[in-house]
Amino acid sequence: MYQLFIANKNYSSWSLRPWLLMQQLSIPFDEKLQQFQADNYQNFRQFSPTAKVPCLHDGDNVVWESLAIVEYLAERHVGVWPADPQARNYARCAASEMHAGFSTLRNVCTMNCGARVQLHNPPAALATELARLDELWQQGLNQFGGPFLTGTSFTAVDAFFAPVAFRVQSFDLKLSENAMAYVQLLLELPAMQAWYQAALLESWREPGHEAEVGLYGTIIKDYRQN
Amino acid sequence: MYQLFIANKNYSSWSLRPWLLMQQLSIPFDEKLQQFQADNYQNFRQFSPTAKVPCLHDGDNVVWESLAIVEYLAERHVGVWPADPQARNYARCAASEMHAGFSTLRNVCTMNCGARVQLHNPPAALATELARLDELWQQGLNQFGGPFLTGTSFTAVDAFFAPVAFRVQSFDLKLSENAMAYVQLLLELPAMQAWYQAALLESWREPGHEAEVGLYGTIIKDYRQN
Repeated sequence: MYQLFIANKNYSSWSLRPWLLMQQLSIPFDEKLQQFQADNYQNFRQFSPTAKVPCLHDGDNVVWESLAIVEYLAERHVGVWPADPQARNYARCAASEMHAGFSTLRNVCTMNCGARVQLHNPPAALATELARLDELWQQGLNQFGGPFLTGTSFTAVDAFFAPVAFRVQSFDLKLSENAMAYVQLLLELPAMQAWYQAALLESWREPGHEAEVGLYGTIIKDYRQN
Repeated sequence: MYQLFIANKNYSSWSLRPWLLMQQLSIPFDEKLQQFQADNYQNFRQFSPTAKVPCLHDGDNVVWESLAIVEYLAERHVGVWPADPQARNYARCAASEMHAGFSTLRNVCTMNCGARVQLHNPPAALATELARLDELWQQGLNQFGGPFLTGTSFTAVDAFFAPVAFRVQSFDLKLSENAMAYVQLLLELPAMQAWYQAALLESWREPGHEAEVGLYGTIIKDYRQN
């Protein structure tokens, strides 16, 4: 049985990606949730060589880094990437672009599932990145027919953008109509709902992550229940 | 025939990765070198949707993002990733860690092949990242027997760390004996030598990249010949 090490569902956007993918593809795993702490380096190093989450354990094999987890699963399970070569190429390019890019979106609109934030004067780069995000999504939705980015099936590229859906919801970001429909589709997936509800029930607060969410705006609502 | 869009060999660490991989595996391609300019966005957008290099064109297929280029080639050519599953997993994890990590190393020791720099009081994070880099390389070299990271053959993970070899040379970085031997092995590859010599012959200077290399140190030597 796979073991998937993740961190707080309210904060950990990287954890969400493989977790959601494995849920959507019905790949069984034991969820090993470790809370973020002010200094979690030594704690996280016990299961992850980079001290980062997510980290997948498969027997003696340790798979760190989200993209490597995806490729590891793709070698063992059907449907991780699209079967069509063009769609698969798009999916890998887009997931890789998300992996190392969109830094302003990630910094300014940090994932905090329960929070609703009114942004004040975000950096200009945010609009540039949202325009690129919209363009990228439109490319997939138009070329492969939707409703997911590479067609009728949820694949790893959708998992890679799932945290963006929570960011759009939390920071009231505006995208094109097609892109907003895609965000809504992601938010309504039962597995996304399950993640969201679990996030709202978490009672742990980590000061670093709490500070980040308010850096460029005001928290106007917090749906967390504990 | 593949077309590989790259930028200045002296500066463009990302360009080096797929270029070196394709050279090492004898995968033919047309090199399309575009010079960095102060504002190259519109220029680079003509061949790359992110306005970034490298970008691979294969007929109508456009493959942006270095990791996606590697996976695209891996579906079409033997030897891109190691054949052994454990080595392949290590290679993908390590390449992905390089792709989105080691940000201090990348910022403080920006690639500038011809320059030799004496660092002054680099941020503490540099030592932390170099320790992790060393640990990561040792893992591969010890587990798979060297001299490359996953054994006797050069694969994509070596391509991903090739720019680090130039950084070690330029900034006189200190690593363990095994790691330094690996750096030397990379620097002596004929394709790396060819890249290096071409970099030295470039006459173009881009002010942004030139400023970066001296941010944390003093340029004590410049081997560029034009």
